Amino acid sequence: MRNIVKNNDYPGYVLQCNEELILDSGKIIKDFKIAYQTYGSLNKEKNNSILICHALTGDQFPAEKNPITKKSGWWDLMIGPGKTIDTNKYFVICSNVLGGCVGTTGPNDINPENNKIYGIDFPTITIQDMVKLQKILVDELKIDKLLSVIGGSMGAMQVLQWAATYPNSVRSAISIAGALKHSAQNIAFDEAGRQSIMLDPNWKNGNYLNEKTKPENGLSVARMIAHITYLSDAAFQQKFGRNLQEKKDLSFGFDIDFQVESYLRYQGKSFVDRFDPNSYLYMTRAMDYFDVSNQLIENKKTIVSNKIRFLVLSFTSDWLFPTKESRSIVSLLNSVGSPVSSAEVVSDRGHDSFLLDVPQQFKIIRGFLEGIKI
Amino acid sequence: MRNIVKNNDYPGYVLQCNEELILDSGKIIKDFKIAYQTYGSLNKEKNNSILICHALTGDQFPAEKNPITKKSGWWDLMIGPGKTIDTNKYFVICSNVLGGCVGTTGPNDINPENNKIYGIDFPTITIQDMVKLQKILVDELKIDKLLSVIGGSMGAMQVLQWAATYPNSVRSAISIAGALKHSAQNIAFDEAGRQSIMLDPNWKNGNYLNEKTKPENGLSVARMIAHITYLSDAAFQQKFGRNLQEKKDLSFGFDIDFQVESYLRYQGKSFVDRFDPNSYLYMTRAMDYFDVSNQLIENKKTIVSNKIRFLVLSFTSDWLFPTKESRSIVSLLNSVGSPVSSAEVVSDRGHDSFLLDVPQQFKIIRGFLEGIKI
Repeated sequence: MRNIVKNNDYPGYVLQCNEELILDSGKIIKDFKIAYQTYGSLNKEKNNSILICHALTGDQFPAEKNPITKKSGWWDLMIGPGKTIDTNKYFVICSNVLGGCVGTTGPNDINPENNKIYGIDFPTITIQDMVKLQKILVDELKIDKLLSVIGGSMGAMQVLQWAATYPNSVRSAISIAGALKHSAQNIAFDEAGRQSIMLDPNWKNGNYLNEKTKPENGLSVARMIAHITYLSDAAFQQKFGRNLQEKKDLSFGFDIDFQVESYLRYQGKSFVDRFDPNSYLYMTRAMDYFDVSNQLIENKKTIVSNKIRFLVLSFTSDWLFPTKESRSIVSLLNSVGSPVSSAEVVSDRGHDSFLLDVPQQFKIIRGFLEGIKI
Repeated sequence: MRNIVKNNDYPGYVLQCNEELILDSGKIIKDFKIAYQTYGSLNKEKNNSILICHALTGDQFPAEKNPITKKSGWWDLMIGPGKTIDTNKYFVICSNVLGGCVGTTGPNDINPENNKIYGIDFPTITIQDMVKLQKILVDELKIDKLLSVIGGSMGAMQVLQWAATYPNSVRSAISIAGALKHSAQNIAFDEAGRQSIMLDPNWKNGNYLNEKTKPENGLSVARMIAHITYLSDAAFQQKFGRNLQEKKDLSFGFDIDFQVESYLRYQGKSFVDRFDPNSYLYMTRAMDYFDVSNQLIENKKTIVSNKIRFLVLSFTSDWLFPTKESRSIVSLLNSVGSPVSSAEVVSDRGHDSFLLDVPQQFKIIRGFLEGIKI
């Protein structure tokens, strides 16, 4: 039984599903929920829907003001009335991913089997498991075919997975700063972050919520590591250089001397307030496991017969998901015979460019979307 | 009073100095010791000495077998009879840096003021403080002028500092994978590592040795972070790719699945056995503080009148100390009128290339050294 309700604590909806979800691991989640938000209106023909897939630390509130953080949504520059993804034209849907911590079922929820918080007993999930949940939501909204699925970073992984798993349900797909599979270096960064969390004594073998504690230090350091990878050497140089933080001279100690230290510590600390450490483990693991190449090749016929159009974007200074990863996507899509547009957008702001005011990115996506009709 | 003694616990020497060392911070260290090793023989003319400066996690045993770890010295490929730095020709000196943990005075030593282990009461040091100590050693060995000072990474910082601070005492200087100053991104990586150590509850405000514990988890994660920066994306890809560790399928959990995870955890754990967490803090801080540009310009006259010859090397795939940093060194040395040779060596093995079997590096250094006479 499925049932859509208004969220209790903040705007948005929750799709309650009293059914079993079979995961790629073979394990089963009973009774799950999908927290989501929509912007704009579904037209009569039901052919103007765009699904937005969020990245590792995103949520279901890309546009307008985020009702929880009270800050602008993470893609508010991209989505809204008259913006690139124009909510006067398109019906925009975004859901918190499976394993997340902003309303969709994840490790910080109650396990119906024993009425305790899942913690590390939550089953390991994949990008495809996240997409399965999104498909249930799209079905429930009575949308047969999405005009587009769009996402950056871990969102781009979901985009490619949609095309591979549900090629009949997608008219176009936009992968931004993504990859066919997670690189060894990226697995390494993920593992350093996970070890930081799991070696924090407050992690308590993943059972911290039941024990009323939280591995805040570990999560904070994991965020600092990750945050460095989201910028570029040039961005660090321009933003901070070797500028000192509210002082004229070096302090000869381990307190904050440089602006970049202040920034990094702030990023770590503020993240702890809004994110669940176990969610961080599950999502990074899903990224590590991601390799969609074979599925795209196996489903070649359906992808081609559905004439799915792809747009693949990357950024010149992104070293976490560098252009060569996007080139591999383009190469594979060409080899299966799919129409694929691509561009390397000039930006010195690193991986985070997909979230920032990079006009070339907006222009390309706007033009691409205008050319798509169901 | 200075006094050279044989090391008690393993080969090598210790120069005991019962005197005051005034640091760049203005603080004073009383009664310090310098642990060092030598290879080859000082000739009668005392003009065949080469000082080797080690990197962050190096020690005074670059050549032969390391008497503590029983593994090959960290630059055994470079230094030895008939090798690039030929110990049949040159008298090679290497000392553990100030703040280190392999015999030279550092935060894990006894503070003579109160007979307790220094811990975080050890004064903050700079690269120049490290070099001051090396100069004391070189003086004590009655060497007026070093034929060359050579080092990679943090070692390259010491090399440039030697030329800036003691231009009368250096005939040539070889900076490998170095920089004039630490970049904002590198300060950020250092800070993430330090926070990992300092947020470990076993750090005990730096007093862990007196409290008979050790922030092993924090140091281990710091090492993992740093280790990723020593390789390159290509090196990770070639070495590990997405290969699984002794298993055929993903385990759907947080144990080791990928070879790269196994490698990284091993690097973290084995580092804990051989390194002191507070030393890690002090040395990374010294790197953050490093900016030798002004001193090189201020001492321009003496550098030029001493005709110091410079060699500046970098590696194509090094993203921690990329070639543009070496280009800045070359540019500044040219602007002060110093003879400077330089090369960008082709290697896909990242920052660690300076420690590895990269024949082009050996050839260039060998040729450069053969052209230097005092």
